[in-house]
Amino acid sequence: MTHPLKLISPDEALRVVLQTSQPAPPRSVPLLQAVGLRLAEDVRADRDCPPFDRAMMDGYAVRLADAGATLQPAGSIAAGQAATGRLTPGTCFEIMTGAACPEGTQAVVPKELVVREGGFVTLPRELGELQHVAARGAECREGAVVLRAGDVITPLAVGVLASVGRQAVLAVPAPRLGILTTGGELIAGGQSPGSAQIRDSNGPMLAAMAMRCGTPPVQVLHAGDDLEAIVAALEALQDCDLVVLTGGVSAGRYDLVPDSFRRIGAALLFHKVTQKPGKPLLFARRDRQLLFGLPGNPLAAHWCFHRYVAAAIRRRCGHAAAAPERRVGRLTATVRRSDSRTWFLLGRAERTGGAEQEWQVQPLPGGSSADIFSTSQANCYLEVPPGDPLRAAGQAVAFELLALERCAL
Amino acid sequence: MTHPLKLISPDEALRVVLQTSQPAPPRSVPLLQAVGLRLAEDVRADRDCPPFDRAMMDGYAVRLADAGATLQPAGSIAAGQAATGRLTPGTCFEIMTGAACPEGTQAVVPKELVVREGGFVTLPRELGELQHVAARGAECREGAVVLRAGDVITPLAVGVLASVGRQAVLAVPAPRLGILTTGGELIAGGQSPGSAQIRDSNGPMLAAMAMRCGTPPVQVLHAGDDLEAIVAALEALQDCDLVVLTGGVSAGRYDLVPDSFRRIGAALLFHKVTQKPGKPLLFARRDRQLLFGLPGNPLAAHWCFHRYVAAAIRRRCGHAAAAPERRVGRLTATVRRSDSRTWFLLGRAERTGGAEQEWQVQPLPGGSSADIFSTSQANCYLEVPPGDPLRAAGQAVAFELLALERCAL
Repeated sequence: MTHPLKLISPDEALRVVLQTSQPAPPRSVPLLQAVGLRLAEDVRADRDCPPFDRAMMDGYAVRLADAGATLQPAGSIAAGQAATGRLTPGTCFEIMTGAACPEGTQAVVPKELVVREGGFVTLPRELGELQHVAARGAECREGAVVLRAGDVITPLAVGVLASVGRQAVLAVPAPRLGILTTGGELIAGGQSPGSAQIRDSNGPMLAAMAMRCGTPPVQVLHAGDDLEAIVAALEALQDCDLVVLTGGVSAGRYDLVPDSFRRIGAALLFHKVTQKPGKPLLFARRDRQLLFGLPGNPLAAHWCFHRYVAAAIRRRCGHAAAAPERRVGRLTATVRRSDSRTWFLLGRAERTGGAEQEWQVQPLPGGSSADIFSTSQANCYLEVPPGDPLRAAGQAVAFELLALERCAL
Repeated sequence: MTHPLKLISPDEALRVVLQTSQPAPPRSVPLLQAVGLRLAEDVRADRDCPPFDRAMMDGYAVRLADAGATLQPAGSIAAGQAATGRLTPGTCFEIMTGAACPEGTQAVVPKELVVREGGFVTLPRELGELQHVAARGAECREGAVVLRAGDVITPLAVGVLASVGRQAVLAVPAPRLGILTTGGELIAGGQSPGSAQIRDSNGPMLAAMAMRCGTPPVQVLHAGDDLEAIVAALEALQDCDLVVLTGGVSAGRYDLVPDSFRRIGAALLFHKVTQKPGKPLLFARRDRQLLFGLPGNPLAAHWCFHRYVAAAIRRRCGHAAAAPERRVGRLTATVRRSDSRTWFLLGRAERTGGAEQEWQVQPLPGGSSADIFSTSQANCYLEVPPGDPLRAAGQAVAFELLALERCAL
């Protein structure tokens, strides 16, 4: 592949990422680890569902001809209890919800609708055929396809898979993701920073983002501004499907990541995107492994993971490349354009008034272009197109919401 | 508390659940386990950020008075390298992005903007004060509050916390959740069902839902239709903050869950809700433990977890009780009313045309009221209010989307 390494647009960069990211080969995944993944096989029912005529209420299994009659129940059938004997005219069985109706059952009468006296019950005068009975096979027949390759394994699908006896399924697995932070000024959490050092924030932040994508990192490594150390770390990550690096992607003397990619034989697919933040974004491939070189600026790293790495994870999982839902709101403050790039800016969106689709959006610029301290209230990304000299308060702005809390149902 | 155990509405039931669910006492949570939780302390910066005047570009640290001058750099400063010496008029330092500017620096000139010849660089004629410098403390001052109690611990917040040296934080912890399935007809995955038996689907389905809420179950137990067995299982779950039972909540002979709640000393808060599915929903409390008795019908269990248990989890995590976003779409097929309850029905919503807010919604009724086999394409819940005799295709319907895939950023 010979993608020219010229400056490309954010849309073009996303297109290259999506083209290059292909769904991983399916493998067998234990049922509860497969939640949110895509099935890679058609799944068939191994028996009729329900597997027997199932009582849907507590009551009495009866024959239609006995409507209005007074009968002595021949027995009581609990859920799970194998039916014994046949229901013949002139008799009935007490039966519990979920139990298998005895052969010959034509209806179940809820217990609230009979009159009980002594050991006898009097049935209503009107009975509907198969009322309160889920007939054998009414939900699906043995051998029928109940889930198809490509279906998302939702909690409901987990219920279906458990019903047909599956404890593992062939699915498109989540990618193995590795993180490599670079930069001579960074120290790890737990260490004490020197006067010119700062603590690494990108490693934990990106690990948290990867967790939110269902792909907690299998390794988080650090390398200083040293080509051999970066190459050695990349070799240690060679079993990962996706590698996310931060730092070292500009054109400076210590920007060694492009060279390290060449050294391990990766093909560089693009370098530099007309976006702010994240202009120096680098994207490469080594066989099936995708490599993202994110800028060290934490706001740029956040944006690039949000837009490009997450898209690659989704494609690798076999999900559609659907863009996040874009909304439009009104700015609460002026946004000034600084240059010709598309600007992606963290902000806070709030619904206004009663109309559910009206939003106001507060931009959250920080004390510097790398300031993550001013973002604690952020719940969205604003998108300001290039070419606008200024957007005043009250003007429209496109935005997309971020997922914040961890209850996603 | 003396809530009368009368039939209550879905709104009233949710109100009782939210009133009863209080945020858990804060505890120290390791940083990466805290993603998506709420902070329970104000967090302050332990040093200025940036902790030094930081170069934001690769280039030259200069004095303003030297605009237009040709200078010989006195040295080169890499990121992480402690500054030595002071920048005096008539000299400059080569400097890398992220490095600490030497004392006396008034601006950083990007390397693209100087003319290099021999060992000398000629600076531009115009220099802005502190251009391309993030001044010490520009993002926050030592001692300043950078995150507040109540803030959600987003990936960005993880970055902030790592920056100020935190490896654990005081947070509202996720609840410990236990699941107890009941029903004599159920067998566990891996076993072979007899003729009147079915495999348990609720246990795995609810475990999957709990995982999606960030609260994977700490225990999943099963008990047959036997009061002593149910009570014993409840005792085994007494360390859980939330217990979710399925089955045994109707008024039948084997509906032992209400009695089991009384036996363990739990206060019953409501029993039966005017909703379809899930009318027999039972809610109780034992000290700080909340107990949900869900119907055994898998569609009812899914709905009741989705609406009530998830709301309790959110409250327990300190999140707002915000309702999910309700949208309105057009029905693709007729929905018939069956009774006076509010009907919550799985369906498939799709955007139509170009306008982003237009949806069409296909109801997904199954082969029985407990049929989860017809729900593999479901991505929403439709809400049909009581009193409507029939909604025809083309009419409006309220719905809320379900989260399906597991990439939530």
